[in-house]
Amino acid sequence: MPVSLNDMRFLIHDVLGYEQHYQSLGLNDPPNRELIDAIIDEAARFTETELAPLNESGDVQGCRIVDGRVITPDGFKRAYEIYIKGGWAGLSGDPAYGGQGLPDSVSIILEELMCGANMAWSMYPGLSRGTINVLESYGSDEQKQTYLTRLLTGEWTGTMCLTEAQAGSDVGLAKTRAAPTADGGYAVSGTKIFISAGDHDMAENIVHLVLARLPDAPAGTKGISMFVVPKINLDGSPNNVTCGGIEKKMGIHGNATCVLHFEEAKGYLIGEPNEGMRYMFTLMNGARVVVGLQGVCLAQSAYLMAADYAADREQMRSLSGPKAPDRPADPILVHPDVRRMLLVQKSIVEGGRALIYYTGQLADQVAAYSGEEQARAEDLLDFLTPIVKGFLTELGFESVNHAMQIFGGHGFIRETGVEQYVRDARITMIYEGTTQIQALDLLGRKVLLTQGKGLTAFIDEINDLAGEIADSLPDLSAKLKSAAREWSGLTLPLAAKAQQNLDELGAAAVDYLFYSGYVTLAYCWARIARTAAEGDENDRYLAGKLATARFYFARMLPRAGAHKIAMEAGADVLMSISDEALTST
Amino acid sequence: MPVSLNDMRFLIHDVLGYEQHYQSLGLNDPPNRELIDAIIDEAARFTETELAPLNESGDVQGCRIVDGRVITPDGFKRAYEIYIKGGWAGLSGDPAYGGQGLPDSVSIILEELMCGANMAWSMYPGLSRGTINVLESYGSDEQKQTYLTRLLTGEWTGTMCLTEAQAGSDVGLAKTRAAPTADGGYAVSGTKIFISAGDHDMAENIVHLVLARLPDAPAGTKGISMFVVPKINLDGSPNNVTCGGIEKKMGIHGNATCVLHFEEAKGYLIGEPNEGMRYMFTLMNGARVVVGLQGVCLAQSAYLMAADYAADREQMRSLSGPKAPDRPADPILVHPDVRRMLLVQKSIVEGGRALIYYTGQLADQVAAYSGEEQARAEDLLDFLTPIVKGFLTELGFESVNHAMQIFGGHGFIRETGVEQYVRDARITMIYEGTTQIQALDLLGRKVLLTQGKGLTAFIDEINDLAGEIADSLPDLSAKLKSAAREWSGLTLPLAAKAQQNLDELGAAAVDYLFYSGYVTLAYCWARIARTAAEGDENDRYLAGKLATARFYFARMLPRAGAHKIAMEAGADVLMSISDEALTST
Repeated sequence: MPVSLNDMRFLIHDVLGYEQHYQSLGLNDPPNRELIDAIIDEAARFTETELAPLNESGDVQGCRIVDGRVITPDGFKRAYEIYIKGGWAGLSGDPAYGGQGLPDSVSIILEELMCGANMAWSMYPGLSRGTINVLESYGSDEQKQTYLTRLLTGEWTGTMCLTEAQAGSDVGLAKTRAAPTADGGYAVSGTKIFISAGDHDMAENIVHLVLARLPDAPAGTKGISMFVVPKINLDGSPNNVTCGGIEKKMGIHGNATCVLHFEEAKGYLIGEPNEGMRYMFTLMNGARVVVGLQGVCLAQSAYLMAADYAADREQMRSLSGPKAPDRPADPILVHPDVRRMLLVQKSIVEGGRALIYYTGQLADQVAAYSGEEQARAEDLLDFLTPIVKGFLTELGFESVNHAMQIFGGHGFIRETGVEQYVRDARITMIYEGTTQIQALDLLGRKVLLTQGKGLTAFIDEINDLAGEIADSLPDLSAKLKSAAREWSGLTLPLAAKAQQNLDELGAAAVDYLFYSGYVTLAYCWARIARTAAEGDENDRYLAGKLATARFYFARMLPRAGAHKIAMEAGADVLMSISDEALTST
Repeated sequence: MPVSLNDMRFLIHDVLGYEQHYQSLGLNDPPNRELIDAIIDEAARFTETELAPLNESGDVQGCRIVDGRVITPDGFKRAYEIYIKGGWAGLSGDPAYGGQGLPDSVSIILEELMCGANMAWSMYPGLSRGTINVLESYGSDEQKQTYLTRLLTGEWTGTMCLTEAQAGSDVGLAKTRAAPTADGGYAVSGTKIFISAGDHDMAENIVHLVLARLPDAPAGTKGISMFVVPKINLDGSPNNVTCGGIEKKMGIHGNATCVLHFEEAKGYLIGEPNEGMRYMFTLMNGARVVVGLQGVCLAQSAYLMAADYAADREQMRSLSGPKAPDRPADPILVHPDVRRMLLVQKSIVEGGRALIYYTGQLADQVAAYSGEEQARAEDLLDFLTPIVKGFLTELGFESVNHAMQIFGGHGFIRETGVEQYVRDARITMIYEGTTQIQALDLLGRKVLLTQGKGLTAFIDEINDLAGEIADSLPDLSAKLKSAAREWSGLTLPLAAKAQQNLDELGAAAVDYLFYSGYVTLAYCWARIARTAAEGDENDRYLAGKLATARFYFARMLPRAGAHKIAMEAGADVLMSISDEALTST
């Protein structure tokens, strides 16, 4: 099993109290513990039986084009049929259009299990989730009836078509055009690239959300509108959307990353003209949390492999004397640095999961609450989203590399399976906005533009928690308090510097992201530790959580200090070197 | 050109003064500036024309077995013929056996150019170098006449056969056996895995250096002897060495990583019985420097690609106002974090090269000197070798990942070429002893066992340099001095702690390696900066070196602080968690 169900349940029930959380949302029919456990068990069965066995074969086989049709790896289509039959596609969809209406945080459980078993496969339904979110928020009732109902059964899947060859991080450079047609629709023309799940053989139809420009639209992001463009028209005729090729990639071979040509394809405007970027951010914020989750899932799957291997593989004796004297050598688990690498992974996986589940609860609150309570949840969620995406994918990549390192030479060999996690994980730091884009989003939009609203709210949370554990965990409490103080303390002068010169913002942003991430995970580990400290002190499982929390505070959190020094070094150290010296040699 | 010749020359002539260095060695015919430049030019021509064009195709095609024979990618064999004709194989070999007798540091130039152009190809002659070193040091005259002469022409290539399925880092667990035969030779039987360049179609014969046990040999590493086992016997009949398969790997596809079966293969003892490990370390120390060089070479090739891309790719405007207002967007080089990523790469590549060239000079001194001077050079070289291997490969991997990040989504696509560097670089942290093994070697053997001999000598070097630049570069001088003080200051208490409990050694070792690496590169950058500060202050090239040195001191060196805190956290934070909590879930 590539995901630890014990750890999921411990977090959901014991640390984060999902049952009480759902009750507090004022839902008509709040999910109870039994329902949540049933969903975990069923989803685990589905993903373990149907998806995990296709992870390696999907990587080896990849997607291909046969007679102009995109064919996914063997078994992907069948697994998707079972997914549809299981009713998974509509788990948290609007009941008015056939969804089951469960909160977002429940979807995350399913997404984690799917991604942990098979990231490339999980991206097909994953892209649908984003499409569903946009249509639920901004689609007309007719669009909902037409598209949303089919997306919620899973019969159709979705995509998000943003990127063009000249427009990557800079979506405002997109050239795809939409011309009004006599029937009230639009003719969409242009070429989109890097479209995940862009074409495939798993569903009857694909619903593309396409960013394009209306005639006379303003330049840049302000002139971008969103269109829904189906692969197959509603009358069953093919629309003018063709797959121009599948990219050969470093990883996620099982997902078809397509070049899509739209040639006067029939499209339909979503919402208002020129509001496409705003709608896309709705989609993207959810997608960014999912990518952070991918970082954690791959780290988790690789960690579980590495932990097994470390317990079995025998090499050398412990420096402090043989631990398995009857064996030719000790298991490598006895070596301190193997333990360190496992603890790094464990602290990223479990702390990262806690952070993502927490953002899931915030998303539930945003959906259920109104007024000030909603605004506060939204501030926190907006603030934490770039940290989830940027930091957890970077640490997820570190983590899978540690897993590979534990395997030594065997880790570099494909059949072991662990190197696939490294290749798959590498994309998570890039797509849905690179780490650099997340960092600018965090420090620029989320901190400076809001005068630190989300940061302040989160620091309040941290200080509350530090207060609550002051007696039970005085060491962690003190470190947490001091980290929170330092974090707010360094943000203000940074903001002042950035107002003088915006390059200071760009120069500090990535280190600020990492700094923020380390403190945020410390908060998560303190929450886990609080729960563990409340339990039976002879319980080895709980003792393991406390030990991991202490490891995190002793050996991971101090990394924040180096990022502080780096960000305080200022922009000049980056900007003063000539372009020539930086690029020619 | 995947390697910067300007930077090579600047280091060789201006910073490290190779000409004077060669004169100081007391060689009969010391290489002068003209000869060195001619070698650089010729080697650059060969590698750019013959090797670089095969880098990507070799990755795509890989090695294969056809009718029981290992076939290298198209063009590899032809390039090797040109390599032989160019006389490159014997560059630094013993003239008594056909070598050209040039110092080791000259070989490094060739190796850098070959690896920067095509790492997988460069490993075929690379493995020969190791074999040559062992035979020169420990082979009988007959063995030298038979094998060394052919290795130095390049007609034959070499391998090192250490690893077995159950014996990776722990070579002492090797089971391969050698039984004496009537003719005075040995029958070698066993299976070796992960043998780089283990079989191929590029040379007439392959000279395997095999670690095996004589009958009644003591257990562990003390019972290991070394044998030379040719693929083809001297009478032209095939020896009983068969390739059992080629591993499918994450990277370096162009190099055949073989399973080799020895079935009573004819072998010949090298040197004395049971001394195999000692001989292998001769080979391995040189090989470890070469692997550190691989880390730097891949980082360099990827950096040069990324720098070009950053200057060309246009996305978004500079936060401090448009820099190319007539273009649709600014080149991404204007963004501070793109510059940061390039500067990280540049500082690793150029600082790392300086460190490797410096160790090359030390190797020259070890070969040429005797007595105290030799001992001092040897102490320094022994001490720096695990830093070169462990630290430069880890930072090389960071570096290629930054290069890929600059390409964004395009970097994840195979045809761009940059992701190959990430896949190829990943092995450098594993083979020839993992980062963990290097760390134990550094802190255990090189520092504690010698009472810090090499460390003390190197810290003297650092302090001398800091003194010399006190006037010209007071900021760097002060930081360098303080780093040296801290380094020796933290080593002693660590040693004391480790003597109480050797797990403390294992718990601190990797962080000690990183810490040492950051200070060592600071020394290298201070040397580069000293030379740059002596030159024309309007020279943009030299100004770029000074700016990079300042970047390194401001934003890279401070990372050492986090490693200091981590290593001082002690072993308990790693050892106290139960094995169960660490591995089961």
